[in-house]
Amino acid sequence: MLLLIPGPVTTDARVKAAMAQDYAPWDNDFREGYRQVCDGVLQVAQGSPDEHVALALPGCGHFAVEAAIRSFVPPGGRLLAPSTGAYAARLQKLAGEAGRVAVPLAVGATERLDPAAMAAALERDPTLTHVALVYSETGSGICHDVPELARIAHALGRRVIVDAVSAFGALPLDVSALPAIDAVVLTANKCLEGLPGAAFVVARRDRLEAARGNAGSWSLDLADIYQHTLAPNAGPRFTPPAPTLAALAVALDLYRQEGREGRLARYTANMRALYDGVSELGLSPYLSRELQGPIVVNVHAPDAPTWHLQLFVDALKARGYVISNFTNTEQPTFRVGCIGAFGPDQMRQAVTAMGGALRDLGITRESAGVAPFLPQPLIA
Amino acid sequence: MLLLIPGPVTTDARVKAAMAQDYAPWDNDFREGYRQVCDGVLQVAQGSPDEHVALALPGCGHFAVEAAIRSFVPPGGRLLAPSTGAYAARLQKLAGEAGRVAVPLAVGATERLDPAAMAAALERDPTLTHVALVYSETGSGICHDVPELARIAHALGRRVIVDAVSAFGALPLDVSALPAIDAVVLTANKCLEGLPGAAFVVARRDRLEAARGNAGSWSLDLADIYQHTLAPNAGPRFTPPAPTLAALAVALDLYRQEGREGRLARYTANMRALYDGVSELGLSPYLSRELQGPIVVNVHAPDAPTWHLQLFVDALKARGYVISNFTNTEQPTFRVGCIGAFGPDQMRQAVTAMGGALRDLGITRESAGVAPFLPQPLIA
Repeated sequence: MLLLIPGPVTTDARVKAAMAQDYAPWDNDFREGYRQVCDGVLQVAQGSPDEHVALALPGCGHFAVEAAIRSFVPPGGRLLAPSTGAYAARLQKLAGEAGRVAVPLAVGATERLDPAAMAAALERDPTLTHVALVYSETGSGICHDVPELARIAHALGRRVIVDAVSAFGALPLDVSALPAIDAVVLTANKCLEGLPGAAFVVARRDRLEAARGNAGSWSLDLADIYQHTLAPNAGPRFTPPAPTLAALAVALDLYRQEGREGRLARYTANMRALYDGVSELGLSPYLSRELQGPIVVNVHAPDAPTWHLQLFVDALKARGYVISNFTNTEQPTFRVGCIGAFGPDQMRQAVTAMGGALRDLGITRESAGVAPFLPQPLIA
Repeated sequence: MLLLIPGPVTTDARVKAAMAQDYAPWDNDFREGYRQVCDGVLQVAQGSPDEHVALALPGCGHFAVEAAIRSFVPPGGRLLAPSTGAYAARLQKLAGEAGRVAVPLAVGATERLDPAAMAAALERDPTLTHVALVYSETGSGICHDVPELARIAHALGRRVIVDAVSAFGALPLDVSALPAIDAVVLTANKCLEGLPGAAFVVARRDRLEAARGNAGSWSLDLADIYQHTLAPNAGPRFTPPAPTLAALAVALDLYRQEGREGRLARYTANMRALYDGVSELGLSPYLSRELQGPIVVNVHAPDAPTWHLQLFVDALKARGYVISNFTNTEQPTFRVGCIGAFGPDQMRQAVTAMGGALRDLGITRESAGVAPFLPQPLIA
């Protein structure tokens, strides 16, 4: 079974094998491995160990997004949160429930965030200390130009929180070159090709020192996690998802062999094989080629009376491929992830399977038009 | 390598095998398995599906303790938090940083919480809506009589939050018979003999409805997680630690075969084999037999100049046994977990290994007295 969802991804057998062990998280060997995993994550972000640190947080990406907002934006503080899609909406909700004010900025569902619009919004409102950006919007498949946006924010004296969850390790991100960045949020189970259960935040040491007392949550206080790392022979603060971290250590070894550019090239090849393949099946990708990012592709549902997302998902699964059984687009689409431990040949085989699944539903190349607009809730 | 730490525990090979797979968390098959795992946890708590629900939270037990406090004690609300040890201290800190007032109640380090003292504290202060109890104090090894304490709290019209993390599945807890309980917090990787990465809260449905709007954190809002479970074909709210949950499904199968009483009897036999064994080695357990719980045993460090906890831990590890390399007791001790997928014969072999490890340090039965009092920080 090949997972073609935008995470958790299909992983290498060597990565999975590391999951099937019992680990003692405060044993000295594990402490050492724990620090190496954090250092490995920091290296992917091109952080300087003197200035930056990667902090591990048990749980999922949303927890780490909330932790970043709580730790770097004080209670009642205000952040610009461009409405780039479903994950930006979640970020806004995480901020709002934590007592921070997330000020939205409208962005079209099939548009890249306009740097000038972001700059204007920041200039209009000097109380916005931060801007929070989603690097790769899983809902749409659009990647926003976080490095450029972070440079603009820096020029305007603002700080940046990046939800890089579905982008980290594939799309370029050099925290050493982007001093405006307070936090980069990532998880083990996306482009790093590890398993789910562990989130991370890459942050500046000086900012973590300054963030003490902000969080209003011991669990989600990055400043406290940071202080914990400063002890000699530091280990995890609370019980970590030890197998997930051990598996990530193996995944990071494989990552270093492939390199960031190699990984991005493979995902881009996966995306192109899918984009071209579904087009040949008579289907229309949701995004233009220019806007389409390499992480996830949404495809317009065929305009056929027999189309049914779950039946299509089931028919594909019977052929060995798992895609998402929900989407975050306003129009009916299906969603296919391009990330994970596989290449374009497997994606082409998956496209062949999609053709077969459509035939199961009685949909042919000729009948596979694009479905009409049907509003759906943004968060499934 | 046998883990003799009070969690994460040694697990059965069949449980570990389920970790080494890729899972799609919103796939219909996984959703079904997800609900079954939650139902299985609820069954262990003897909850009635009409009145109770088990909610899964990615991450560690502390996150779930904070979630329970945030969700059931409103901001600024007050809870009695008897100071039974290191984990009670952590609960107090989790509450305090979340803006709730945890009122301590002094309890001796080697005393069981006195029901009369708890009742008096609640009667003295009618603003205390809740009492938060740690069922098995990992720091000391003492188990407190949570069922009795919950009945007393009920009689006084107060609600109860139980940190049952290291006790759940072994010590008796019937939420249907204890209506004062708002939340029972547990994790997969203690007496249920699963792997780390997943926490749970068992709670009443009516109380979860009433808890809406309390949490001040979307991530840690049990009321929101509960609302999410009410949708048809409900799955996880955020990305779950899918392999950990799949492994827990296997662990729950094994649990049902053994039964709660069988599991408690095995752990008790493990504890006794250890307690008797270290006594024969000339060492003194930290607790009297009457106070000693079945989950974790602390043993006074020998009063020998060559004693060194880490060297002892290393010498034991060389023999195939991992114990904790820190303790939460004021006096120097070493700490051995009695929970996990093993029995008293293996514990007796571990005791033999402890004798060998002591000899490595030049400590004999004759020289192994009890170390003098040395204050240490309560939280390592």
